[in-house]
Amino acid sequence: MISVKEAKNIILNSTQDFGVEEIPFIKSVGRILKEDILADRDFPPFNRVSMDGICIDFIAFKNGQRDFKVEGIQAAGSEQITLQNKENCIEVMTGAVLPNNANTVIRYEDVTLKNGIATINIESVEEAKNVHDKGKDGKVGDLLIKQNTKISAAEIGVLATVGKSVVKVAKQPKIMIVSTGDELVGVNEIPLEHQIRRSNVFTLVSLLERLHILSETAHITDDKPVLKQKIETYLQEYDVLLFSGAVSKGKFDFLPEVFDELGVEKLFHKVAQRPGKPFFYGQTDNCNVFGFPGNPISTFVNCLAYFYPWYYKSVGLEVENETAILSADVTFKPSLTYFLQVKLNSRFGHLIATPIKGNGSGDLASLVNTDAFIQLPNDITTFKKGEVFPIIRYR
Amino acid sequence: MISVKEAKNIILNSTQDFGVEEIPFIKSVGRILKEDILADRDFPPFNRVSMDGICIDFIAFKNGQRDFKVEGIQAAGSEQITLQNKENCIEVMTGAVLPNNANTVIRYEDVTLKNGIATINIESVEEAKNVHDKGKDGKVGDLLIKQNTKISAAEIGVLATVGKSVVKVAKQPKIMIVSTGDELVGVNEIPLEHQIRRSNVFTLVSLLERLHILSETAHITDDKPVLKQKIETYLQEYDVLLFSGAVSKGKFDFLPEVFDELGVEKLFHKVAQRPGKPFFYGQTDNCNVFGFPGNPISTFVNCLAYFYPWYYKSVGLEVENETAILSADVTFKPSLTYFLQVKLNSRFGHLIATPIKGNGSGDLASLVNTDAFIQLPNDITTFKKGEVFPIIRYR
Repeated sequence: MISVKEAKNIILNSTQDFGVEEIPFIKSVGRILKEDILADRDFPPFNRVSMDGICIDFIAFKNGQRDFKVEGIQAAGSEQITLQNKENCIEVMTGAVLPNNANTVIRYEDVTLKNGIATINIESVEEAKNVHDKGKDGKVGDLLIKQNTKISAAEIGVLATVGKSVVKVAKQPKIMIVSTGDELVGVNEIPLEHQIRRSNVFTLVSLLERLHILSETAHITDDKPVLKQKIETYLQEYDVLLFSGAVSKGKFDFLPEVFDELGVEKLFHKVAQRPGKPFFYGQTDNCNVFGFPGNPISTFVNCLAYFYPWYYKSVGLEVENETAILSADVTFKPSLTYFLQVKLNSRFGHLIATPIKGNGSGDLASLVNTDAFIQLPNDITTFKKGEVFPIIRYR
Repeated sequence: MISVKEAKNIILNSTQDFGVEEIPFIKSVGRILKEDILADRDFPPFNRVSMDGICIDFIAFKNGQRDFKVEGIQAAGSEQITLQNKENCIEVMTGAVLPNNANTVIRYEDVTLKNGIATINIESVEEAKNVHDKGKDGKVGDLLIKQNTKISAAEIGVLATVGKSVVKVAKQPKIMIVSTGDELVGVNEIPLEHQIRRSNVFTLVSLLERLHILSETAHITDDKPVLKQKIETYLQEYDVLLFSGAVSKGKFDFLPEVFDELGVEKLFHKVAQRPGKPFFYGQTDNCNVFGFPGNPISTFVNCLAYFYPWYYKSVGLEVENETAILSADVTFKPSLTYFLQVKLNSRFGHLIATPIKGNGSGDLASLVNTDAFIQLPNDITTFKKGEVFPIIRYR
């Protein structure tokens, strides 16, 4: 049995490259950018008026002039016009090109307009005020968004601005999620006394959706030849297989044997942690196999603790680890890393983690009342209120 | 001009009820639950074996017996069998029903199986060990998920378990996003010197997508009759209109007049904040109108600071406010609430906000390097390193 740290190292050393694809930029939120985005022109591309008002040549104001004849209007979206007489002014709109021969904008709030004359009502005006200079935010060719950035609404605006209607992103892995366990029936069925409904595959589908990965699901009966035949096909067709169940010591836990017979290289089986100990991880040349234990919390935590970082590294995304402060003492004696469910609260810039003890790894309903797992190390048994540990959020 | 606090109050007092719809549970992530979810049976629904191993009647062990003849196997998904002779044992698998007449499970790790006899190798066994009692996590009829919960992967598992294949959620508002501004051209076009590409509508589409809202977009030229005619139709057809631009003092900022002429009740126009001051908010009987100023950062921050809380309250979701700790002193003199862009980092359970000064409200590219806005109040001019203020995340 290896430690959580060793397991994570092995997983991060066996990532996959799913390749790159081009997609419409408006569909790219949540995806990982696979090209540098450069400015296609200066930002702003012209000396841009940033307030509605009038523009003047500052020298006239400096020389004491306060009344300016209005020569014309420069609207946003119109070609640049020219201030013909430097003792006159032009009305200008936010977003317009600053007219030739003018250099300063005075907002309407500080001006009285009457009979074609604009009178400035303030004593002090700054030269070049309310003008957003060409190239101030960036020069043509500047790096605006780095490769490997996760695209959010902020990046969408920049992509639109530079005309990247199609953008290169990391391809998503093709994933099959397989549940096993003859006690499982469909969500639409009424289970018999000894049966329960399938839930882990749907939880996994939703956890992958958070990463903007679409996945497929299947259920295979606890029958070794059937398992073997189906998994052989899946190993060819998918980049990743996620299993829930059949990896522990039960008489019908056929998966480790089946993987072995199908040439899946076992990288580890069992990790010193609770919940989720019987976790199997292996690979073939073109497929990574995550065999999560079948208890709902075990599947849930292992997807977050192992599949997520594996995926992030595979697509080139760096993710900051988050920590939180325990709000109560916790005692945990086994020499195992303890993934404890917590409720999170933000208090004066502190992230407080309140432990919520469920009824073990089968207690799916307990996840509803918590926000994250706090990861408590295996070489300590008492964790004190106020101490800080890493967390894995799932909301 | 009203304060940010007043503006937010007005907005939260003019929410809409979009109604309720039923959708497949697997499509419900991110949506707001509009029914209580109750346990359809006990959780677990039977005394559930939680380890692979053998089950016995504890009294036999207590009386000193260590060798148990194996009577049979109770697999997960099989009908409950009965331990016929209480001095024998039955092999049991995780997820199986505990057989009749047995009450304690000893895991395979602590047992030797040879010639049909299971020998227990440990000295101490707890009665009822490794049995997850019927109803321990919840009784039939118990409330598992409260109405108004935002559905995540955790809830999906519970919905599947109780057989809620179709679930009641808050309907999403029907939203039209309208950009104005004659300087704007399409993302696929090459702008002329005095033009720029449309970006705000796409940013807004993405910000709504974060709330799982699909929206439509349109661009209207800065021509009052055209604006009026189109908006009249939109006011009938949509629950919400989001505008970007044409709400300030410019000669072609026709929206406030058009709204007035179309019977949109103005609830406020202009908020004492930077960026985003010329924000217009109004409503008709069946439509809420958010007129965001056209500068990219203004549109962005106002969508987060006003539309988001309005939506949350409309669908019944309570959202915890988050705070962060300033990493550097900030001075801001105007008597305006200052939405300052910050980079966030988690350090020992503390959320640190590092101010990143952009080049004003037109500097869209600056959003790429930041994670949130920190909201600095209008009645203070110096904000010290270490002080705590509310934040609005956008990643």
